[in-house]
Amino acid sequence: MKYCSQCGDTVSHIVPEGDNRPRYVCTSCKTIHYQNPKVVAGCLPFFEDKVLLCKRAIAPRKGYWTLPAGYLENGETTSQGALRETIEEANANVELLDLYTLFSLPHISQIYLFYRARLTDLDFFPGEETLETRLFSEHEIPWNELAFPVITETLEHYFQDLPKNHFPIRSQDIVIDRKRHPIK
Amino acid sequence: MKYCSQCGDTVSHIVPEGDNRPRYVCTSCKTIHYQNPKVVAGCLPFFEDKVLLCKRAIAPRKGYWTLPAGYLENGETTSQGALRETIEEANANVELLDLYTLFSLPHISQIYLFYRARLTDLDFFPGEETLETRLFSEHEIPWNELAFPVITETLEHYFQDLPKNHFPIRSQDIVIDRKRHPIK
Repeated sequence: MKYCSQCGDTVSHIVPEGDNRPRYVCTSCKTIHYQNPKVVAGCLPFFEDKVLLCKRAIAPRKGYWTLPAGYLENGETTSQGALRETIEEANANVELLDLYTLFSLPHISQIYLFYRARLTDLDFFPGEETLETRLFSEHEIPWNELAFPVITETLEHYFQDLPKNHFPIRSQDIVIDRKRHPIK
Repeated sequence: MKYCSQCGDTVSHIVPEGDNRPRYVCTSCKTIHYQNPKVVAGCLPFFEDKVLLCKRAIAPRKGYWTLPAGYLENGETTSQGALRETIEEANANVELLDLYTLFSLPHISQIYLFYRARLTDLDFFPGEETLETRLFSEHEIPWNELAFPVITETLEHYFQDLPKNHFPIRSQDIVIDRKRHPIK
């Protein structure tokens, strides 16, 4: 951030009075520009003992498999965002069930939320950001070709919980030192 | 938003190519400025059958009672944010337990998360944004002087769950038409 979005003058990166963190503050109109984590909402769509994965058509992790998910938009509930992304990325018709996983990723300031979602038909097909959509049973999951740690974790929890048919909410933090583990 | 934070030129509010929502887009450098919901993280601090509430010293809802909570900061996990706010607003020492309530407030583009938190001592006292900190048993809760619907909902769930000592995660949407219900 270099310029104030309110008045167009320059900003400085300083700790405002009464605060304890540096913020971008306008040198002219004094507006404080707060920056906060973003929420990513998505679904774990399933049919019988299989789950629906999407092969990414875009960076990052193009060509790797993911669950349908994306940034929550202003004016949306988390479940509305999860449903919208499932339609946008996989054109999948689902019945949304309970929240299943919640991840904090402080190194990239993101909060992920995945809902379990029952596929109501098998008429899914790739959206614009997806190369391929496919159902996978547990032994077919391409564990080495999953796009992000939150996908691996969610699928591991799911196939651990599936035999018991009991899906408690899993809340966890994923901390990655990006200097040592750059994401290609 | 009136000016581009990258180059300082003006922005227009248009639907970018390949998108389906209006965004602020720079007329000069073409940067798209996405705006997304914010996360508020907080605690429900308890001691025996009582809960800790804070009387707000700041707007909005100055003088009304709330649970310690505030905007999640970049680089934080949701539980770190909940703990930080509990210290900032109530100087309360707690042991963080499970996530308890999750609210979507699409009319103000906020996501609230509350954790149950056991007070490890009773040495709490008001922080700068708090007028008073006090423990309340169920019959003492000032139901008509609670600051926000998410506080009322979280406390109602809690006192409903307390006799069973079983606290399942409660996820819900709170939709308010602000034109009809202005917050004073």
